[in-house]
This record gives sequence, structure tokens and C-alpha cells, in this order.
Amino acid sequence: MNFSSKLLENAVNEFAKFPGIGHKTALRMVLNLLNQSATSVEKFTQAITELKEKVCFCKICRNISDQLLCEICTNTKRDSTLICVVEDIRDVMAIENTNQFNGVYHVLGGLISPMDGIGPSDLSISLLTERLKSGEIIEVILALSATMEGDTTIFYLHKKIKEFTINVSVIARGIAFGGELEYVDEVTLGRSIATRIPYENSLLK
Amino acid sequence: MNFSSKLLENAVNEFAKFPGIGHKTALRMVLNLLNQSATSVEKFTQAITELKEKVCFCKICRNISDQLLCEICTNTKRDSTLICVVEDIRDVMAIENTNQFNGVYHVLGGLISPMDGIGPSDLSISLLTERLKSGEIIEVILALSATMEGDTTIFYLHKKIKEFTINVSVIARGIAFGGELEYVDEVTLGRSIATRIPYENSLLK
Repeated sequence: MNFSSKLLENAVNEFAKFPGIGHKTALRMVLNLLNQSATSVEKFTQAITELKEKVCFCKICRNISDQLLCEICTNTKRDSTLICVVEDIRDVMAIENTNQFNGVYHVLGGLISPMDGIGPSDLSISLLTERLKSGEIIEVILALSATMEGDTTIFYLHKKIKEFTINVSVIARGIAFGGELEYVDEVTLGRSIATRIPYENSLLK
Repeated sequence: MNFSSKLLENAVNEFAKFPGIGHKTALRMVLNLLNQSATSVEKFTQAITELKEKVCFCKICRNISDQLLCEICTNTKRDSTLICVVEDIRDVMAIENTNQFNGVYHVLGGLISPMDGIGPSDLSISLLTERLKSGEIIEVILALSATMEGDTTIFYLHKKIKEFTINVSVIARGIAFGGELEYVDEVTLGRSIATRIPYENSLLK
């Protein structure tokens, strides 16, 4: 792209660094900012600066929080003997939206991925094993993506957690609700038959 | 969405104000920023602040520029008797990329759109008529979108410019290069037959 202004080019390049944002979208966003008032642009940059400076990661579960401990970990109504291990805070939000889980979380901050150079030490796994040492945990649910990285991480965590004689479970994989059988891929369909459950267990309580 | 942090929610809402950016994309962008180093986040906000504070709009054509006059208007090799009127600076960049135009530009900053409350006085039309008064302009090309707003603006500008006995032209409309005839809409195809040109004129010089 030919930019008539170096300042414009800088700003567009900064926006284009985001995943999934190309140069055309970045330009549209920057021009949108230019059309806004100086105060709303300041509000925008301030929200980012404040977030970066003041945001905390919960000392227990690594969830994003405004305090040292997050709202979920400090909520006494939640079952702290049940830990759900997730990749990042988007998964926490997704599971919270289902209203099907009343335990606490542990945010790994990624998945083991040798291809990207991410090993177990890059994730908050040692923090998780510290939590398990307390002896109060009854079950750990591994709610990770059904990808190669997810499966690798599940395999690694399962071995780690088994040392503590704690129950380890994974979330169910199968056809999605509303999914038509003929469009489901073979692996998912095959596995969903192999891991079938009694009808009574499939009903929501 | 349930946010575990007010700061996070603020930042996501600010990003979600951009056109075409929903809350999920905004969250992904904010989490990406959080994973970056403090210096690169500062670089990001600084690029925006600097752009907003220091950017100029060329005094002649309203193109974005770092100086009072843009590079195109100050370039003596360009034909300043030929003005191409466009909606915004993205169109300047698009036309510059074609390498088919050696005149100068005039950026309107929008199109006449009564539905959105945008009238002729909201655009840089008076600045354009000032330029025409100099008597040096031979032709004005109206390179506006083939939409209702574009056509309204063309109609209005044509009337204005005709007062100066200056040639007014519009960019050609018809089937796109590489377009297959059977998939072209009826209006475009019908107009492209009605406004056909001699074969010799269709060849690129």
C-alpha cells in the first residue's frame, strides 16, 4: 500500500499486527479513529494503557482479575474441590455462560505445542500441582480443545495429576446439539458411537 | 459476556466500537495486547495518539498528509489541470495503485446521503469550487462509488462544476475484468451494452 502519511502508515502497521486483521481492515479502523473526536480516541488509548498497567492474574487460578484473587476463587458458594482446567480466559467465559459448572478454574495460558516451542514449563502447570498438593481437590476436569495440542496437554496433565490419586475427567466429545448426522465427520461420529452413554445419563438434570 | 475484570470489559467495549468488529473479535484483540510486552503496547497506543495529534489534511485536496500540503499536490510532475474527485483517502490509494492516473485529487470526505443526514455542506465541496475558480482546471473526473449516494453526489457535483465550463467525466461502469458474462447482474450488463465503446478505445495505451 502507498501511504501518503508516515504517521498513518505506522498506525496501520500497528493494527495489522493483531491476528486476523489485515492491512485493509487495519486502515479502515485507523480512518475510523481519525474521524472520531480527540476525547474518544484518548478514551480508547487510555482503556488499553490502564488494562495493561493495572490488570492482575488471579494468584490461585491465573484468571484475569482486577484484584489479586478473582471473583470465582473468592466465591464461597462455589465448589473448590472441583477444578476445571482450561486453555485461556475465553474458555472460562464460555463455560461460565453455560451455567453448568459450579467448581473453580485453572487457566493454563496455552497448550503444549512443540511446533510452536511451547513446553509444559511455559504454562501454569506447576501452579496447578501446588493446588493439588493441598489434598482438598476431589476431581480435575480437563476442558481442553479437541486438537493435537489439546490432546498432548491432556496426556501430560493426566500423568501429572494421577500422582495425587485425584479423579481426572475430560469433557465429552461427540456430535454437537442441532448437528445433522450426515454432515458430521467420520472421526467424531465413530468416537461418539464408541463412547456412547446410557440414555438416562444423557438427560440434563 | 461475563467479564471477570472491569478493565478488560472497558478495553473490549472500546475495540468493539470499530465497524465490523464484534465483541468476540474485540476480546481476541485485547487478549493479544495483554500477551504482548509493555513496550509494544506503548508503541501501539503511541502510534494512535501521534497520528491523531499530528496528522494533517492537505490544504488543497484534503488528502491525509504529514505536511500542510500532500506529496501529490506538491509533485510538479503531476498534471494539476486534471482533478479526480474521490470519496475518501482509501480511494486515492486504490487509484494510485493502478498507475493509470497522473493528475491530482480532491477528497470529499464522504458522499451526499440524506438518509444519514450528510448534506453537501458536510463535504469539502466549497473547497473544490474554490479550486475550480482559479481557471486552470481543464477536466474533473468524478470517481465515486456506483451506489445511490455516489450517483446523488455525482449529480450534484456535475451541476456545480458545469457553471465553470469545465469538462466533467465519470469513470466507466461495466463488467469487471475477469468477470463472466452469465454472472453479471442485469443492470450492469444492460448499461455496459448501452455505453459500449469502439474496440480501439478499449485498448490500454
